[in-house]
Amino acid sequence: MKKVLIIHGPNLGLLGLREPDIYGNFSLDAINEKIKKLAKEKKVSVDFLQSNHEGEIVDAIGSSPKKYDAIVINPAAYTHTSVAIRDAVAAIDIPVVEVHLSNIYRREEFRHKSLVAAAMGQISGFGVNSYLLGLLAAIEIINK
Amino acid sequence: MKKVLIIHGPNLGLLGLREPDIYGNFSLDAINEKIKKLAKEKKVSVDFLQSNHEGEIVDAIGSSPKKYDAIVINPAAYTHTSVAIRDAVAAIDIPVVEVHLSNIYRREEFRHKSLVAAAMGQISGFGVNSYLLGLLAAIEIINK
Amino acid sequence: MKKVLIIHGPNLGLLGLREPDIYGNFSLDAINEKIKKLAKEKKVSVDFLQSNHEGEIVDAIGSSPKKYDAIVINPAAYTHTSVAIRDAVAAIDIPVVEVHLSNIYRREEFRHKSLVAAAMGQISGFGVNSYLLGLLAAIEIINK
Amino acid sequence: MKKVLIIHGPNLGLLGLREPDIYGNFSLDAINEKIKKLAKEKKVSVDFLQSNHEGEIVDAIGSSPKKYDAIVINPAAYTHTSVAIRDAVAAIDIPVVEVHLSNIYRREEFRHKSLVAAAMGQISGFGVNSYLLGLLAAIEIINK
Amino acid sequence: MKKVLIIHGPNLGLLGLREPDIYGNFSLDAINEKIKKLAKEKKVSVDFLQSNHEGEIVDAIGSSPKKYDAIVINPAAYTHTSVAIRDAVAAIDIPVVEVHLSNIYRREEFRHKSLVAAAMGQISGFGVNSYLLGLLAAIEIINK
Amino acid sequence: MKKVLIIHGPNLGLLGLREPDIYGNFSLDAINEKIKKLAKEKKVSVDFLQSNHEGEIVDAIGSSPKKYDAIVINPAAYTHTSVAIRDAVAAIDIPVVEVHLSNIYRREEFRHKSLVAAAMGQISGFGVNSYLLGLLAAIEIINK
Amino acid sequence: MKKVLIIHGPNLGLLGLREPDIYGNFSLDAINEKIKKLAKEKKVSVDFLQSNHEGEIVDAIGSSPKKYDAIVINPAAYTHTSVAIRDAVAAIDIPVVEVHLSNIYRREEFRHKSLVAAAMGQISGFGVNSYLLGLLAAIEIINK
Amino acid sequence: MKKVLIIHGPNLGLLGLREPDIYGNFSLDAINEKIKKLAKEKKVSVDFLQSNHEGEIVDAIGSSPKKYDAIVINPAAYTHTSVAIRDAVAAIDIPVVEVHLSNIYRREEFRHKSLVAAAMGQISGFGVNSYLLGLLAAIEIINK
Amino acid sequence: MKKVLIIHGPNLGLLGLREPDIYGNFSLDAINEKIKKLAKEKKVSVDFLQSNHEGEIVDAIGSSPKKYDAIVINPAAYTHTSVAIRDAVAAIDIPVVEVHLSNIYRREEFRHKSLVAAAMGQISGFGVNSYLLGLLAAIEIINK
Amino acid sequence: MKKVLIIHGPNLGLLGLREPDIYGNFSLDAINEKIKKLAKEKKVSVDFLQSNHEGEIVDAIGSSPKKYDAIVINPAAYTHTSVAIRDAVAAIDIPVVEVHLSNIYRREEFRHKSLVAAAMGQISGFGVNSYLLGLLAAIEIINK
Amino acid sequence: MKKVLIIHGPNLGLLGLREPDIYGNFSLDAINEKIKKLAKEKKVSVDFLQSNHEGEIVDAIGSSPKKYDAIVINPAAYTHTSVAIRDAVAAIDIPVVEVHLSNIYRREEFRHKSLVAAAMGQISGFGVNSYLLGLLAAIEIINK
Amino acid sequence: MKKVLIIHGPNLGLLGLREPDIYGNFSLDAINEKIKKLAKEKKVSVDFLQSNHEGEIVDAIGSSPKKYDAIVINPAAYTHTSVAIRDAVAAIDIPVVEVHLSNIYRREEFRHKSLVAAAMGQISGFGVNSYLLGLLAAIEIINK
Repeated sequence: MKKVLIIHGPNLGLLGLREPDIYGNFSLDAINEKIKKLAKEKKVSVDFLQSNHEGEIVDAIGSSPKKYDAIVINPAAYTHTSVAIRDAVAAIDIPVVEVHLSNIYRREEFRHKSLVAAAMGQISGFGVNSYLLGLLAAIEIINK
Repeated sequence: MKKVLIIHGPNLGLLGLREPDIYGNFSLDAINEKIKKLAKEKKVSVDFLQSNHEGEIVDAIGSSPKKYDAIVINPAAYTHTSVAIRDAVAAIDIPVVEVHLSNIYRREEFRHKSLVAAAMGQISGFGVNSYLLGLLAAIEIINK
Repeated sequence: MKKVLIIHGPNLGLLGLREPDIYGNFSLDAINEKIKKLAKEKKVSVDFLQSNHEGEIVDAIGSSPKKYDAIVINPAAYTHTSVAIRDAVAAIDIPVVEVHLSNIYRREEFRHKSLVAAAMGQISGFGVNSYLLGLLAAIEIINK
Repeated sequence: MKKVLIIHGPNLGLLGLREPDIYGNFSLDAINEKIKKLAKEKKVSVDFLQSNHEGEIVDAIGSSPKKYDAIVINPAAYTHTSVAIRDAVAAIDIPVVEVHLSNIYRREEFRHKSLVAAAMGQISGFGVNSYLLGLLAAIEIINK
Repeated sequence: MKKVLIIHGPNLGLLGLREPDIYGNFSLDAINEKIKKLAKEKKVSVDFLQSNHEGEIVDAIGSSPKKYDAIVINPAAYTHTSVAIRDAVAAIDIPVVEVHLSNIYRREEFRHKSLVAAAMGQISGFGVNSYLLGLLAAIEIINK
Repeated sequence: MKKVLIIHGPNLGLLGLREPDIYGNFSLDAINEKIKKLAKEKKVSVDFLQSNHEGEIVDAIGSSPKKYDAIVINPAAYTHTSVAIRDAVAAIDIPVVEVHLSNIYRREEFRHKSLVAAAMGQISGFGVNSYLLGLLAAIEIINK
Repeated sequence: MKKVLIIHGPNLGLLGLREPDIYGNFSLDAINEKIKKLAKEKKVSVDFLQSNHEGEIVDAIGSSPKKYDAIVINPAAYTHTSVAIRDAVAAIDIPVVEVHLSNIYRREEFRHKSLVAAAMGQISGFGVNSYLLGLLAAIEIINK
Repeated sequence: MKKVLIIHGPNLGLLGLREPDIYGNFSLDAINEKIKKLAKEKKVSVDFLQSNHEGEIVDAIGSSPKKYDAIVINPAAYTHTSVAIRDAVAAIDIPVVEVHLSNIYRREEFRHKSLVAAAMGQISGFGVNSYLLGLLAAIEIINK
Repeated sequence: MKKVLIIHGPNLGLLGLREPDIYGNFSLDAINEKIKKLAKEKKVSVDFLQSNHEGEIVDAIGSSPKKYDAIVINPAAYTHTSVAIRDAVAAIDIPVVEVHLSNIYRREEFRHKSLVAAAMGQISGFGVNSYLLGLLAAIEIINK
Repeated sequence: MKKVLIIHGPNLGLLGLREPDIYGNFSLDAINEKIKKLAKEKKVSVDFLQSNHEGEIVDAIGSSPKKYDAIVINPAAYTHTSVAIRDAVAAIDIPVVEVHLSNIYRREEFRHKSLVAAAMGQISGFGVNSYLLGLLAAIEIINK
Repeated sequence: MKKVLIIHGPNLGLLGLREPDIYGNFSLDAINEKIKKLAKEKKVSVDFLQSNHEGEIVDAIGSSPKKYDAIVINPAAYTHTSVAIRDAVAAIDIPVVEVHLSNIYRREEFRHKSLVAAAMGQISGFGVNSYLLGLLAAIEIINK
Repeated sequence: MKKVLIIHGPNLGLLGLREPDIYGNFSLDAINEKIKKLAKEKKVSVDFLQSNHEGEIVDAIGSSPKKYDAIVINPAAYTHTSVAIRDAVAAIDIPVVEVHLSNIYRREEFRHKSLVAAAMGQISGFGVNSYLLGLLAAIEIINK
């Protein structure tokens, strides 16, 4: 059974509390339930990591190839500031899919830039569905 | 039955010929077959428009609300230069999903900017699958 | 009797539908009626062109000197992206007046730049009245 | 009877002397006569202020709501450098129309930026007629 | 008894009228009353100057060392455009504290830049309390 | 009794050692004593966190609403590089006051930009007093 | 016999009328006669397309490999704004030579940028001769 | 006898007090004495204006042609921010010489830009001698 | 015996795996062996820290003066984004040498900027030898 | 017989050795032979100068009008950095044609800018043929 | 007797020929005669160097302290591109005065920047008189 | 015996005289002695070139492969302005090591950019030791 690591970046543990007009009303647990349900349907297993620490996310990506077949990551604020996450993604050879709850082009200018451009593909703007579409995309790639 | 308009922007008629390391080997017809197959599974109908003319694409978007429930658009080169398509997308009230075959952040700098930011969400970098994921996203939204 | 060509740029056919807080509630037909009424009072004749096609607008400007004494143009989205319309305006020797429904300096940054700077003068921010003031300005010039 | 304040910004007292290829041959008095004539026709009263002092113009705008129904202002050089005038315009609730003798987009780059973007609308490039069109626009708004 | 000069920059005489979501509902008189009350408690005397004129503010700063022990200044719009006020602040040897009602980083981009950087310290975003905190800061410095 | 969290960002544990012409001669302990003394006078309780880890600071901010009534934060170097701290501040509903020992506008250009603009207000340039004024400001807000 | 397509971009149909100090006094027909004469000498056949429509030019380039051995294109205003033409040129495998009547570095700043950089080579600044030199260059390449 | 107006811009009344490492130890009166002495030698008469008010300087320049044969101006801080002074200089037909005590290229970046570029020539960096050289330059021009 | 701390920044634990055309084929352990060998020859002792956490690196630098005589640091991705590491380096008084495996000027534009400019010197582009040369440089300094 | 000076800028003496994918396999001598052959056909005489010294090239241009009827110059690296060559070209009244072996728009960003814009026309991207087309262009001009 | 070196930068040997509307009609010899005449009056001796070679100018500046008491330099085109001349000026301890025939702020944008900012003072815009004023300024300094 | 060419760029002949806080107190001869001593130890021979002429340095680099096994170059001011030296370095196939006495990131902004990025590696900030480390690095490479 294929394994996918879902990484939630900084502040995503606060989902449901935070600026609901931008991020929606779902809590992170509710999102994880939806992801698990889809994983089960598609017969892959998923693990979750939520971290506010850039270094922990870099650690997780760097050690992922031994344990996972793909990564779905929402780098949140680190999308725009972390060259370290970019380099980690470039250093591994399993597919990485970048997802965002909101469309980064419709927010502040400094959020238009993505440093995590090393990811294979990017899905943004569909709220919780961004994760589900991201998982589908990852599964498609690892099944090829 | 819900109807979705698939818009292929400039030069996409040349797919299969053009820079295969960036765009893959599929012809546009092969892509459309895959889209039709998915549409059938999901019980929606799809129409296709390929145009190299910014004005035709603006016309199609502007008149779409009378005929369609959603649009999936790959604006290709017009992503980066057309304010007119942006304004057309903002002027209508059906969901519009923006897709790209390649990850625009991994190409030339001038392709990092998307003027079509009025679209609900964006999917890029998954080759043909960008369209299929885009169609799934659109269906999800119109079924809500 | 002097003749003036009124050019409505991309998406203006959707007026009344589109973002009413920016563009107001008038349809394009209603605007044209107001323009015709003023033209009649001022004893000039007016023709109208609405087009979403940059090329059609360039064609119209290029061939206008044989048929018209002045142009009033709302280039809409092409204000900010079309060097071709700028060059067309610079190439002809009848007066061209540029109008905008809204004040472009109060909108997104990328709308502050006008490439159509070859026009004689510019009127913006008065809604429908921008057209009427533009027509008055054009008449004043051709009557000198 | 409605009252409109006409504000002439810095150096406009020198009109007729100064760079005639840009500003025309009219003196400021001649312009004021034309404005008065139109005001009379339209049955509004007009007062004039010419000042080279940013502070005086800010004073005049700030105290205008008690005495005037609208302002027509040619901020001249202060268009490009005065945040204070912008804030004054934003602070009052009578309509303000910004006018320029020449088309600011056809002059030096540093004149393309307007900080007075808080004004309702803008008219530029018609020489003396910019003032007359501006007065018409102001009257139209206060009569609504 | 120590003396502090409180300088209110352009348009602050309109407080209470102007954009209350940004500046609050207090009139300048009400603010001055609060400042006087705190001054009395802290046993310093305060004088006030409100001016829309950059030159008057420069004059006041330049002549202040003879009469005052410190300055609390809200340069308002001149924060972003006046090198003359900056130079005046740098030229005197009494402490100058810069205050702002709102957080300049949460407003338009052109307000993020402060040219009055010669001031000792800066307090912004606390509404009327910015003045009171500024006065406390000034007193603390002159009492050392 | 109200509770306030004081957050000291990276390298502030080295205070007293580091570049004394910029940061003064106080050690962090000495600063904390002064803060505690003021807190006692004002009858609030204070907790302290010094961390060089962006992630720890984000964690602390995210979990603060359950335990604290306000935050006073000196983000130090993270002021200029952390979108994650900005998002954390924006995600919570207790007041956050940003303080700096030195005036960021008088230092290197890259320190003029504050990404933590989501904070209610900002106080900078008063050395140790920046913290004390920040605490006063926070108390004033939570007492309203 | 080899075939070359000559594409004249927007507004070039107005040649002879338009800003003669920049573009010279030749009409487009006169230019085409000169091109035909040279083609005859060099024993190649030439076809001509003048279009103000970006989309038509993209269509023509995309379908050219079936009919032509090389393209000589003067993209005029689209040089600076069309990513679509750039992509079309990159998508085909026959040589494309870019020509300009005037030296784009001696005109307005926004004309210094060429988006059509995918073309093999560029010739600019020789008036009508730019076309003739461009045709010679194209012939040289296809004869290799 | 020829007459020259010497204009001292903002804060120059504080000379001798202010940042002596940049501006030297001379008071403005001492400078004026040196200027008068040179004027006497060269047989011209000089008048002086020191003003912190941009508007007063604009007034003085605008009315100078009736009274003076040349202007020597040290615009000080207004060098970098005043388009109004630039326009005033451009509007008159007597020679204007711009002088600075210090070399503006050796100070902060924002002082490298001169908006008063309409002046005939510029002399900077020679302390008090900048004025004397400026007066010599002006005399040379008006004697031609 | 003098002690030197060798700091390996983010992702360097993956060396040997990652983009070998940029970073070479050595694993981090192999590099450390080479460093130890040189240290032994030069009679200094070395400790190693590899961390993906910006905060850990800041902690290590801040506490190093008690334990080490010099630091050799390869900040990797944090070179370009960490003001906190820069401030830590500036806060301590033992020499710090910055090394890079590759020449940062030959990689992506965003890698040309070094925020860690507080380091005494910089060595880049010699692969593993960058570390060895860096250690030699550090030893030279501490032996003076 | 007309005389043309061919100037080869810095490093062109290394042609054939240097980066053959950019500059081709021809040595400079081989190129000069081709140029001489064409010159003979066209009945003009040619002289050659290869120099790595900006000053020598400026000298040669400045003294050329006495000896030559036209210049064909490949300024190579000096294209992007030499204002002195630009000024030399502008100072003489014989035609100067600028040529490049490769298309400068397809290379590094800093090579897109041409300071030698004073040249009449520019030919780039055709390898050795750039010189031959440049000579033809020069001959055409001097024969007019 | 004091000695002054006059350095004429690139292309100044062409004076009188070149763009007379910018540089005037004087030849370099005529200028040198005027300088010699003034030197005689002021009892200093002058030597002249005209060079188109950046390196020669750097050589001359570097060796000047042994032979000269001051330098007057018109760096011409090298003003804007030569860091080497800037460093040479900074390396010597005799005064250096920078002169320009024309006002660099009234010419192309790339000429507004002066890299030779290490010079004591700058005089520009007075044609030949710029040299004479520069010589006076130099004499004044060396006589102190 | 391997041979290495040491190139000293502009103004380095003045070392010991010039800005000692930046460059130290060593004369160039003293530096060369130290280099020769190290060369002897390492059994390589060294030649020296000091030149203020960009062209001479380009000549030396271009002809070096016939005579030398490696180059150590301190391009000094030409680091930031010479594309010609960059191209020369890229054109040859012996290793080139770039050295700087000071850390270019700690000096003026315009010195942060290195155009000589074609060099294999870079060493800066160690004073004279930069050369010695550079020579060691070069020897290491040529001995592989």
